[in-house]
Amino acid sequence: MINKELLWNDLKKIRETSPLVHNITNYVVMNNTANALLSLGASPIMAHALDEVADIASISAALVINIGTLSNEWIDAMMIAGKTASSKGIPVVLDPVGAGATNYRTNTCLQIIKECKPSIIRGNASEILALTSSINKTKGVDSVATSESAIDAAQWLAHEYNTVVTISGAIDYITDGSMVEEVKNGSVMMTKVTGLGCTASALTGAFAAVNRNYLQAATHAMAVMGIAGEMAVKKSNGPGSLQVHFLDTLFNLSFMDIEQTLIV
Amino acid sequence: MINKELLWNDLKKIRETSPLVHNITNYVVMNNTANALLSLGASPIMAHALDEVADIASISAALVINIGTLSNEWIDAMMIAGKTASSKGIPVVLDPVGAGATNYRTNTCLQIIKECKPSIIRGNASEILALTSSINKTKGVDSVATSESAIDAAQWLAHEYNTVVTISGAIDYITDGSMVEEVKNGSVMMTKVTGLGCTASALTGAFAAVNRNYLQAATHAMAVMGIAGEMAVKKSNGPGSLQVHFLDTLFNLSFMDIEQTLIV
Amino acid sequence: MINKELLWNDLKKIRETSPLVHNITNYVVMNNTANALLSLGASPIMAHALDEVADIASISAALVINIGTLSNEWIDAMMIAGKTASSKGIPVVLDPVGAGATNYRTNTCLQIIKECKPSIIRGNASEILALTSSINKTKGVDSVATSESAIDAAQWLAHEYNTVVTISGAIDYITDGSMVEEVKNGSVMMTKVTGLGCTASALTGAFAAVNRNYLQAATHAMAVMGIAGEMAVKKSNGPGSLQVHFLDTLFNLSFMDIEQTLIV
Repeated sequence: MINKELLWNDLKKIRETSPLVHNITNYVVMNNTANALLSLGASPIMAHALDEVADIASISAALVINIGTLSNEWIDAMMIAGKTASSKGIPVVLDPVGAGATNYRTNTCLQIIKECKPSIIRGNASEILALTSSINKTKGVDSVATSESAIDAAQWLAHEYNTVVTISGAIDYITDGSMVEEVKNGSVMMTKVTGLGCTASALTGAFAAVNRNYLQAATHAMAVMGIAGEMAVKKSNGPGSLQVHFLDTLFNLSFMDIEQTLIV
Repeated sequence: MINKELLWNDLKKIRETSPLVHNITNYVVMNNTANALLSLGASPIMAHALDEVADIASISAALVINIGTLSNEWIDAMMIAGKTASSKGIPVVLDPVGAGATNYRTNTCLQIIKECKPSIIRGNASEILALTSSINKTKGVDSVATSESAIDAAQWLAHEYNTVVTISGAIDYITDGSMVEEVKNGSVMMTKVTGLGCTASALTGAFAAVNRNYLQAATHAMAVMGIAGEMAVKKSNGPGSLQVHFLDTLFNLSFMDIEQTLIV
Repeated sequence: MINKELLWNDLKKIRETSPLVHNITNYVVMNNTANALLSLGASPIMAHALDEVADIASISAALVINIGTLSNEWIDAMMIAGKTASSKGIPVVLDPVGAGATNYRTNTCLQIIKECKPSIIRGNASEILALTSSINKTKGVDSVATSESAIDAAQWLAHEYNTVVTISGAIDYITDGSMVEEVKNGSVMMTKVTGLGCTASALTGAFAAVNRNYLQAATHAMAVMGIAGEMAVKKSNGPGSLQVHFLDTLFNLSFMDIEQTLIV
């Protein structure tokens, strides 16, 4: 159950403190991700060089690891940054893009989960299921399962690795292994804009930077995604204008918008 | 001569089956390309790791290789994916970005053509001419020749390598070595948006995924590009809004739009 | 003091000659940068392969080096391209993104400055200060200092390395070591769009391509950024629509726009 005041407090804190969010993410979405973090009020940095990722992770308020276009050298950077952040108590968010599509992706995610101890994992149902099963079920990077079907898997994953797991979908589910939160906002047109899932992970990083209750932080991030997305879709003629309105809406999001739009 | 019913059938098939299109493409356009494929109705995946490109190519309905920001490691990935797709009968589309600007680009394209046997090659006139000549004629990545001037080269290339060649320009020409199709739609403002040529190649991949008559598939892709581009330009004040309207138009494209806009 | 006629002449020259601007830049902004150069009237090319950067730099009218998402292999490419361009009298622009955030970035910039002899360096105040001090003062990639505070550092840097230095900020300062020009146009909302600083560096490259008075070229580029940005902000509801309107405004910028908007 989302508390609007607490959500608003987190958003205000992001806007006031502009936390530095370190992203090691994929080439496709770097620009969107940076823009969404800026529109939210956070300060994004993208850096992956082996010579500096530990330094960057150390000065950041959160680290977001997204394996979208991974390759071996980038995995090395993710591991160094992830272990550094984790050892310093800086929250790490993992986006297991396309887990299940290839063993390479699934295995990389499991290695990151074991060694970097992410505070929050956010994926679609196919990806979350893939992390708890040896059977590949993913078609590319889009989910072929409903978010409901992955709740058990998410709870197991959260419990096993002492983390919070977000399953995004028509309804988003967020669990710490025992409690399960729901976010019902959003719109199907959001699946037609590339990387809005990655954006959700990045915003999750920003909320984790200002709220150490990670179940709450992850839920607030998905609520803001859903509210801003839903408001933006209403003004849009298609996926092109949705991208534009999404950033504008995020930038201008007010307590009244939350009050009027959040489905509880 | 474009048959509107067949074009519409292909578009409906893409929207219904949402074919997975594997892109090994350049950093500049990855986001646009993914968004254009989503707006069209296809499912894009970008992946280049040597450890997974064969796996990804194998589960895809088409592979699009675009050498825009190539480097040696990426060429290795292109070769592995291209040979895998080709050996499995999955259509391969090559976009020879900047062929002719450096020998490195021209030679890489010729190697891909010989070893990966693309079903369709789509480039501007300068690029197509460069692939059939040892003389460098390209200024950067923008064409300095008219599309007409490359028709003979395209026909030779298509015949020599048993492929279909699309020359994009003010008029697009598509040939299988004997027949030459024309697409007259489009607008010059489209050349002021980076990567719309790359988008054309990606959409060509989506059409090839649902139509094994590659001359037809390539022609349909260029027709949809031209129609959506032309409709979008009419609503746009410049290249910024053109990008937005292009995606919206693609997403909403109806049979009536095709009927009213296609120049035959 | 900016002369409107000279600024307009440079802009017309860019539109008429469409100079090829070679960018070795970061993954986050490649798309924006290419689009901004196209909307301005220039012809962008992005290339970083060790096998071709010297060839591409040699045929270009300007080279822009931006270290945003640097890694060792890319530094090698920057050095080869930078030395090639410099030795041929082709102007080199350096954008020291995040200098000061890590020693890796600061040291890379100093190496590029010493060996590639850039004609113009454009950064925010934190970055310029970092290049003249051994103390790290940068928080990520956003400036924590006012542009005024870096004027002395910029003058020292320009004098020491025989270059022009642009400090961008609420007011932009441009100096060749003795003279200091000011650009007062712009809007704070521009800092909420990722990579508009990188765009400023790219446009600086385009102006340097047509005007060998680099103090003037750098000043004209910042004036065009500020004018187009300010005009675009007036039409925008947030950072999303600002990106769209910025490109449209750049594309349509007229002498009357300059006359009416430039603050002198």
